[in-house]
Amino acid sequence: MNDYQIEINLSSAKKQKPAFDSLEFGKNFTDHMFIMDYTQGRGWHDPRIIPYQPLKLDPSAMVFHYGQSVFEGLKAYLTKDQEVLMFRPYMNMERLNKSNTRLCIPAIDEELAVQALKKLISVDREWVPNVPGTSLYIRPFIISTEPYLGVASSKQFQFIIIMSPVGAYYKEGINPVKIAVQNEYVRAVKGGTGNAKTGGNYASSLKAQEVAEETGYSQVLWLDGKENKYVEEVGSMNIFFKINGEIVTPELNGSILEGVTRNSVIELIKHWNIPLSERRVSIDEIYEAHKRGELEEAFGTGTAAVISPIGEFFWNGEKLCINNGETGQVSKKLYDTLTGIQRGEIDDHFGWIVKVDEETPVISAI
Amino acid sequence: MNDYQIEINLSSAKKQKPAFDSLEFGKNFTDHMFIMDYTQGRGWHDPRIIPYQPLKLDPSAMVFHYGQSVFEGLKAYLTKDQEVLMFRPYMNMERLNKSNTRLCIPAIDEELAVQALKKLISVDREWVPNVPGTSLYIRPFIISTEPYLGVASSKQFQFIIIMSPVGAYYKEGINPVKIAVQNEYVRAVKGGTGNAKTGGNYASSLKAQEVAEETGYSQVLWLDGKENKYVEEVGSMNIFFKINGEIVTPELNGSILEGVTRNSVIELIKHWNIPLSERRVSIDEIYEAHKRGELEEAFGTGTAAVISPIGEFFWNGEKLCINNGETGQVSKKLYDTLTGIQRGEIDDHFGWIVKVDEETPVISAI
Repeated sequence: MNDYQIEINLSSAKKQKPAFDSLEFGKNFTDHMFIMDYTQGRGWHDPRIIPYQPLKLDPSAMVFHYGQSVFEGLKAYLTKDQEVLMFRPYMNMERLNKSNTRLCIPAIDEELAVQALKKLISVDREWVPNVPGTSLYIRPFIISTEPYLGVASSKQFQFIIIMSPVGAYYKEGINPVKIAVQNEYVRAVKGGTGNAKTGGNYASSLKAQEVAEETGYSQVLWLDGKENKYVEEVGSMNIFFKINGEIVTPELNGSILEGVTRNSVIELIKHWNIPLSERRVSIDEIYEAHKRGELEEAFGTGTAAVISPIGEFFWNGEKLCINNGETGQVSKKLYDTLTGIQRGEIDDHFGWIVKVDEETPVISAI
Repeated sequence: MNDYQIEINLSSAKKQKPAFDSLEFGKNFTDHMFIMDYTQGRGWHDPRIIPYQPLKLDPSAMVFHYGQSVFEGLKAYLTKDQEVLMFRPYMNMERLNKSNTRLCIPAIDEELAVQALKKLISVDREWVPNVPGTSLYIRPFIISTEPYLGVASSKQFQFIIIMSPVGAYYKEGINPVKIAVQNEYVRAVKGGTGNAKTGGNYASSLKAQEVAEETGYSQVLWLDGKENKYVEEVGSMNIFFKINGEIVTPELNGSILEGVTRNSVIELIKHWNIPLSERRVSIDEIYEAHKRGELEEAFGTGTAAVISPIGEFFWNGEKLCINNGETGQVSKKLYDTLTGIQRGEIDDHFGWIVKVDEETPVISAI
């Protein structure tokens, strides 16, 4: 039986904070971190907040060799009333456990994890940036730490949460990006790890991203690994299209990540009574819709960028320009609504917001 | 310009060595390790041998999040004449660079890497075990170390070599293993990272391995990710069949690892004038060959196990027993020849052996 009391060991010195009006994504980290250990037979134990510090791991620690790791990404926002809000943290922790299942990592207690988030943010509250467009990016992750070179599931893990004050993910902001359709490299395939948030998916994507950037495109559009035909994701985001008035997004097929922003966008679209379908969508269908003038909008969704409008696709030597390269109406409305809810400026009818400062329930042993 | 002089900083204390007659795979590590840093703009620098010690990495180091890592595995052997031999180390370093290319990791100097191996083994020479069947397992690996959460290629890396005295990889030794054919999970797909030795491939394989073990099978036979039909690898080994007198192995198709042992087996088979073909081979073909009584042998090949005979396949609810569950003639001959060459007991006609103690050429600046 574990006692889930979170021990807090405060840092004796505070770091210099970066200027909140010129933050880069994921480069500065707060004064503290959360950490919890897993040992086979003992389970998850010793949840604690400690000063931000390097990890000391044996060079044979399994994460360096066999990639058994998972992560999450979410954000906290400072409201005009100086409250700190998190966006759907329970959904992130639920997904973390889905990723854990695929990667043979023992499940974490989701409630404990959200309590850990609240405590950690409270401790580093001064790091939640107060400049429009900024937020506190939160990165929970689990790594396999057993010092052993056999190919097997690790018997030791660490669950860690670090936090970084961030500006906008894309330098372009809400301006549309140009996307290259990827025909050669594959991100994921059915039966693989595409629907888990694990390092290997991202490592695998770097090469195509490099190729896209060399030719002036900022992201890659991924097609399915089996037939190289159906649209899956864009960069590290889910993708949506508006075709002749209907919003279309690839259905969750096992190789697509179940995005929290994707889910929120679907809820909003339904709430607004805009026609929506989750289904297979081929790149040929997109091409044909564009040819007929019916491809009205395209956008990516993800925690880092929230909504990222797509102004151009490059496919098989052809450039498909969308909505004259401008941000579409639905894209803009989704962006404004989602960021409005996230910042407490628009009422949250969906129960998505979790306040950091609300009374933390006493955490009892389980 | 880098000066590739390898600095040596010896440990002040020697660790207690494990008993060499009861070694487990990959659990004990020698007194020293090799390490070299990469910084964008400066290239690879500061190659050095230092006491074996934990790595200190920022929790935001990219390897923990985006899995940008590669590795190799090779072995050194003590001969009866007390010489230490390595088996095809240049081929491993060449493959490391192929993996680097796929994973956007800067290439290493292959000659420098082999010199590093020689120096490190010389320093820890007492750790090369002298009991029959044992060897010194060597693990070169590269990890991305930049403290940054953006999804991009890291601008900092470390190339590290650690070593572990090992017994046999499989407790069963050269005895045949039972293999379950995997229909649900996929290891790799064309366009993915299957032919690179990177953590994500191994992380992805753990679930299927777990399922196989729960049903009494020691390894998984992987089928291709596109059609779920063609044989790719077995566990973390390449696979060979003997069908009606001919040796058949899946051709290198982009999703199969280019095994050093695989390559050596092919060379030996050709040298012995046994018919051989590298081609696509479907699981149906294997099933039909077995039905006709023509599936004479099956075996896996890899550095850890060398040759691992397969005594049984489990597929679609049916058990296919091979060669009465006994080690086949070709499997046995390959195992004896390869291990004989590796231990210096059989003449090396192929130029595969590299002596650790031969005059090390002066390493000059490049």
